[in-house]
Amino acid sequence: MNYDIRDIALAERGRKRIRWAARHMPVLNQLREEFAAQQPFQGKRLAVSLHITTETAVLLSTLHAGGAEIALCASNPLSTFDDVCAALVEEGMQVYAINGEDLPTYRRHVEQVLDIDPHLVMDDGADLIVELHKRSSSGSVVAGIEETTTGVVRTRALASDKLLRFPVIAVNDTPTKHYFDNRFGTGQNTIDGILRATNTLLAGSTFVVAGYGWCGRGIAARARGMGARVIVCEINPTRALEAYFEGFQVLPMEEAAPLGDIFVTATGMKGVIRKEHILQMKDGALLANSGHFNVEIDVAALEQTAVQTQEIRDHLVEYQLPNGRNVYLLGQGRLVGQVAAEASPAALMDLSFAGQALSTYYLLCTEHRLPPGVHNVPAELDERVAQLKLKALGIRLDTLNADQLTYQASWQYGTAE
Amino acid sequence: MNYDIRDIALAERGRKRIRWAARHMPVLNQLREEFAAQQPFQGKRLAVSLHITTETAVLLSTLHAGGAEIALCASNPLSTFDDVCAALVEEGMQVYAINGEDLPTYRRHVEQVLDIDPHLVMDDGADLIVELHKRSSSGSVVAGIEETTTGVVRTRALASDKLLRFPVIAVNDTPTKHYFDNRFGTGQNTIDGILRATNTLLAGSTFVVAGYGWCGRGIAARARGMGARVIVCEINPTRALEAYFEGFQVLPMEEAAPLGDIFVTATGMKGVIRKEHILQMKDGALLANSGHFNVEIDVAALEQTAVQTQEIRDHLVEYQLPNGRNVYLLGQGRLVGQVAAEASPAALMDLSFAGQALSTYYLLCTEHRLPPGVHNVPAELDERVAQLKLKALGIRLDTLNADQLTYQASWQYGTAE
Amino acid sequence: MNYDIRDIALAERGRKRIRWAARHMPVLNQLREEFAAQQPFQGKRLAVSLHITTETAVLLSTLHAGGAEIALCASNPLSTFDDVCAALVEEGMQVYAINGEDLPTYRRHVEQVLDIDPHLVMDDGADLIVELHKRSSSGSVVAGIEETTTGVVRTRALASDKLLRFPVIAVNDTPTKHYFDNRFGTGQNTIDGILRATNTLLAGSTFVVAGYGWCGRGIAARARGMGARVIVCEINPTRALEAYFEGFQVLPMEEAAPLGDIFVTATGMKGVIRKEHILQMKDGALLANSGHFNVEIDVAALEQTAVQTQEIRDHLVEYQLPNGRNVYLLGQGRLVGQVAAEASPAALMDLSFAGQALSTYYLLCTEHRLPPGVHNVPAELDERVAQLKLKALGIRLDTLNADQLTYQASWQYGTAE
Amino acid sequence: MNYDIRDIALAERGRKRIRWAARHMPVLNQLREEFAAQQPFQGKRLAVSLHITTETAVLLSTLHAGGAEIALCASNPLSTFDDVCAALVEEGMQVYAINGEDLPTYRRHVEQVLDIDPHLVMDDGADLIVELHKRSSSGSVVAGIEETTTGVVRTRALASDKLLRFPVIAVNDTPTKHYFDNRFGTGQNTIDGILRATNTLLAGSTFVVAGYGWCGRGIAARARGMGARVIVCEINPTRALEAYFEGFQVLPMEEAAPLGDIFVTATGMKGVIRKEHILQMKDGALLANSGHFNVEIDVAALEQTAVQTQEIRDHLVEYQLPNGRNVYLLGQGRLVGQVAAEASPAALMDLSFAGQALSTYYLLCTEHRLPPGVHNVPAELDERVAQLKLKALGIRLDTLNADQLTYQASWQYGTAE
Repeated sequence: MNYDIRDIALAERGRKRIRWAARHMPVLNQLREEFAAQQPFQGKRLAVSLHITTETAVLLSTLHAGGAEIALCASNPLSTFDDVCAALVEEGMQVYAINGEDLPTYRRHVEQVLDIDPHLVMDDGADLIVELHKRSSSGSVVAGIEETTTGVVRTRALASDKLLRFPVIAVNDTPTKHYFDNRFGTGQNTIDGILRATNTLLAGSTFVVAGYGWCGRGIAARARGMGARVIVCEINPTRALEAYFEGFQVLPMEEAAPLGDIFVTATGMKGVIRKEHILQMKDGALLANSGHFNVEIDVAALEQTAVQTQEIRDHLVEYQLPNGRNVYLLGQGRLVGQVAAEASPAALMDLSFAGQALSTYYLLCTEHRLPPGVHNVPAELDERVAQLKLKALGIRLDTLNADQLTYQASWQYGTAE
Repeated sequence: MNYDIRDIALAERGRKRIRWAARHMPVLNQLREEFAAQQPFQGKRLAVSLHITTETAVLLSTLHAGGAEIALCASNPLSTFDDVCAALVEEGMQVYAINGEDLPTYRRHVEQVLDIDPHLVMDDGADLIVELHKRSSSGSVVAGIEETTTGVVRTRALASDKLLRFPVIAVNDTPTKHYFDNRFGTGQNTIDGILRATNTLLAGSTFVVAGYGWCGRGIAARARGMGARVIVCEINPTRALEAYFEGFQVLPMEEAAPLGDIFVTATGMKGVIRKEHILQMKDGALLANSGHFNVEIDVAALEQTAVQTQEIRDHLVEYQLPNGRNVYLLGQGRLVGQVAAEASPAALMDLSFAGQALSTYYLLCTEHRLPPGVHNVPAELDERVAQLKLKALGIRLDTLNADQLTYQASWQYGTAE
Repeated sequence: MNYDIRDIALAERGRKRIRWAARHMPVLNQLREEFAAQQPFQGKRLAVSLHITTETAVLLSTLHAGGAEIALCASNPLSTFDDVCAALVEEGMQVYAINGEDLPTYRRHVEQVLDIDPHLVMDDGADLIVELHKRSSSGSVVAGIEETTTGVVRTRALASDKLLRFPVIAVNDTPTKHYFDNRFGTGQNTIDGILRATNTLLAGSTFVVAGYGWCGRGIAARARGMGARVIVCEINPTRALEAYFEGFQVLPMEEAAPLGDIFVTATGMKGVIRKEHILQMKDGALLANSGHFNVEIDVAALEQTAVQTQEIRDHLVEYQLPNGRNVYLLGQGRLVGQVAAEASPAALMDLSFAGQALSTYYLLCTEHRLPPGVHNVPAELDERVAQLKLKALGIRLDTLNADQLTYQASWQYGTAE
Repeated sequence: MNYDIRDIALAERGRKRIRWAARHMPVLNQLREEFAAQQPFQGKRLAVSLHITTETAVLLSTLHAGGAEIALCASNPLSTFDDVCAALVEEGMQVYAINGEDLPTYRRHVEQVLDIDPHLVMDDGADLIVELHKRSSSGSVVAGIEETTTGVVRTRALASDKLLRFPVIAVNDTPTKHYFDNRFGTGQNTIDGILRATNTLLAGSTFVVAGYGWCGRGIAARARGMGARVIVCEINPTRALEAYFEGFQVLPMEEAAPLGDIFVTATGMKGVIRKEHILQMKDGALLANSGHFNVEIDVAALEQTAVQTQEIRDHLVEYQLPNGRNVYLLGQGRLVGQVAAEASPAALMDLSFAGQALSTYYLLCTEHRLPPGVHNVPAELDERVAQLKLKALGIRLDTLNADQLTYQASWQYGTAE
């Protein structure tokens, strides 16, 4: 049996929820129609490691409708929806993922997915890509696609060590991903995850955001929009200045630690909140992470330091510190918007997943041949995604007339002419 | 057995969650200490109809710690947490409430609560007060407390018909309730309820808020803070002008209907969204209510009109209309922030419930005697609540010095003196 | 010659600017048409003390068109526009006001205005009312109208001393004034005044607002909207809590003083920023006032403390302190939005001045007789103003249908019916 | 006499105002100290065309203190402050600029500035660079610096025609300029210019921003912050989607034209608001431009179409259209924040001008040799500016520890390790 999931009987519930996501993904719907008609992926095998959500299901169905053979594992053991897995198996994919699976199972599933000898790997955190490079050969793989900042960092490191064997398109680095999914998606789902895990009041709270990249600024904007007073921690001078001019207080973590009611990390770095910070925090402080890996908050240090721990609610654990104060960790320090909420809304995943679908087509079905290395999404794909989305939203844009096109191209026009 | 709840075995889980709420209710915690020491409510019976949440539990424990005998039913059949009921029964209260109970059960529970022959009724929607006035006598009741706008309207109607038999303090009309719970609490929990029920993207959406009272403006502010474009519908000219100057588009519902992606009612009025509006809506429109009663959206008309309905997710039902479009009703048109999320955060309920606790003390344990009618919370109680909260938050205020107090009292100081 | 102004030759420029204001005052324009047709003020003399701006001119023209005889002085020596005075004289009013006039001249002008033996005094700060009560008789005066909080305080003090001889309508206390002029008008013109006086960057600045009444919250909202980080100082616990939940930092002035880049007072109280605060401020701090009187910042103490002062730009004076730091006072500590900018925009003055025009009509031309004391604007006048404004803006509202009107009046409808 | 200015007697006033700007430019102040000590520019001649404001004066003083010989003309005839010119002449520079000078004078001044045979040209709109390339030789010029988007476009066009003779550093394209001056500076000064020119109420207004680049998004954010309802017009799909997700309405100009109360262009394109749009506008619409050149609003078409025009206030002209409506043009369609207000605040010019000062040093005083073409500001200069600014603001950042630096460099760390 070429799948390993919780319960195939969950398929009906999964299908219903996938249809709900598909409602909000008009760009993928349109691509699906095109692919279904043309069957461009006939005979192509895809190994996929993604958060297994309803939106991911819409992406995979889109590729599957175009003829692709797909094997799927989870990019994070906690973000898998078992009902979605069941629906995808019934649709004909090989799925190896169970919510909450332990580490050995997780690793076995990664290997099972790679065992289909894929033509393309689609990754979210680069676990497939890294695993593949531990093997002596990449088999039929001609290209990869990577979704996250963290995975791109890992893939770049492989490339700079001259180990990377094939081209990888970094979907994460594309404007459509940066601008939309990271900012608006992570911004909303971080708030959502915190509310579901704690039902805490954001209005009036002091909300510390570590990292002012696209995710961090999305989180900061939404926290402010919910009435919080936001403090930003950064290491980059230009980003720190931006945060300052946006009206946020900018402090190093050691100064923010005793002030915050809620802390969220979104840096891509490890050890951003450490023991020395935690011991300075107020009684009742909440700690959450929105970066890809669960290394941004030093959970190990927190567990060693605590004199007592207890689960308070789903995704909320209380740690009693030696100083008598309690701090609360959300979702084990994993991506709070995916663990405690439902990841980015379908309307945004539509954009980045449409980029993935078009990149897959570009890599497998066109004449373009990229050398090994990390590549950007070709700009024309990105612009096509934006245009399809605007069309679906019913938004018309201005266009340049002949006079304006001439002006754009010329340099003779000056102050007074 | 003087209780009727789902399962007493849920008590441990309930206690744990109540402790989490209590962490965020420092004002009640302080009152609890005072009441526990003084036992002011010894021999007093309280009949209570409230949303049975963890925060309500903290209020009732505070009164119970002061010696009160308490019987409790739900003010809304869908907002009851069964684990909280169990914990309160174990603490020694009479609880008659089961999540999702049918109407006959609900009515029986109301009667059982009144059967303790209370000295005071504490109400949320005036169901106890109205039921009591259907009886020939109110027994030992000397006063009531009402929590919501809707309940106040109903009680005022009783009073203007000269039927009201005892004084009722309208906790709802007090600044601490208006300003904080309605605005910041309903604002947040409406967003929270919509996200949990749908995981829809708020950024970029067109979000229609019907009613620009305190709840409505809280919802509008938070929707904007999450990136939505907000349209306000109002019937009051002054409120409509306020919404306009706050930068919201102001339209009558018939013009807003074809524009909105999400609709939320918060008016206290029935039939705000009617069949003629629904038939104008876009495919995919979401309908939610944040007013007390489930009458603001005409659910009956929606059900009669729909050619097909199906549940998509928890608290989300799809209605296919004769025109081929689908609209989606959240939480059956009941309070979305209570049905699909967890009602107002504890930090805010701390304020209005502290007002209730102090009002209970005022009505049962002091010399003050109010005539039958609807009364405001005495201003000194309200100010005491605010002061206790600021103290708990560690916020110090400026105070007037002698010179300033003189200035405040005098009229001789003019432009140039 | 029954006027005393700078230069009658400025009339043409004044007329042009008044027309610009009139463009944005559609409610007054409509009233003007009605009054011109009906001549309700024939034979009535009005003594007026207002900020002499283009918007004031539109109000007075409206009353003058209705037959009133008008004498006018300034409510603040620095806010007079000499070109407006000239235009009003040419229109046929008696004007006694010169921008920057000294105190003896100011007082003489107040007296000259009262010398017309008015039927009604229209005041802004209560200087006319107070001066009148220093006289043995109020002559023909039957009523007064007062525009500001400060004037209302002074008039109430007169009333509570049982000295007030006639009814005074407090235009200031009406929703249309509170909600709109104080919040949106003062909010904008305070920002405008600061920018014109300093051209300082608001983004990223720490902006301290003393007072969180309607003016203060307007200022705080706009400062935040321009990118500032806002700190609020308050003495009232409920208002302080509101500011906190709106996401502002709340501090007493002594803690805010060393943090602020910009300080604005809007309290109605004297000595809000005192020597001890000023000596704690950062080098470069800006001090401005948006309260009616120039007593909120202790300018006398500032001048005594400074080792050197020099004017830097119009409305900006540098005070070098003994500690070597410099602080900067805007507009001499007078209303910064009126001294350094142009007071509230015409579109808002349209509302409060329409209230004044309708109140004048109510007091002089109807059967209503109010006793001596301070009275609110009758609610029906206020609502009429709001309706006229909405109509001018082209905004339609929802209205209740028969079913809803019944619902509003009844109390029988409960949870499940 | 090697200057041509309004009046040398204005120098004292100019110096005082320049000192006020210098207070807010701590980065330049620090560079000035370094340059004064090291005299790196001894023997170097600089031809400068910039908006002649107090901030420009601080930049030029900084270079002059380092030994540079400077000749200066205006980059826009209307933005010159004559008192600043006088102060700079007294400081020893050659200044050829008079506020409001006519076109022949403006051109003569450009030529006089180039006549010093400069080593470096510092430009704002590329008028010097273009003029130089009309000459047969560039003389001693080894490099240029260009400040604006428009100038960069013109210079790039020269380069792509293979005509550009020397390297030009595009200060405009650097993060410090984009992120800060364009967004926060233009954002604020556009609002400021509109308020000074009109005193119109922004709250509630419908505010149309054409162009959602860095300037446009700064303007949109500030307009929203002042209470306006903002509509964005764009031609780029990705930018349009961003505006949509930020909650702005996105429309083509032809649909926005009949809705707007205020229109601001910030596109770099000509003819953005044309006759066909103007004829659709509401009576009273305001038209302003914040792009570099006065071509974005078709002023010629406006003047030809109008049946009557008159100046209403400074920088505000009324155009009566054949349809009976009036529209109002601010500042002749030139940069409204520079014509009607005072350009970007010193605190921001500190950043871009520090970049210019460091680029000047880089081009004239180091070993680096760039080829002809348009170059970015070297990243290390930009980062140095940001660091100096943060230091001046007293803001400390987090820094990576050894463990984190290792993590940053490695790729072995995965999900579960």
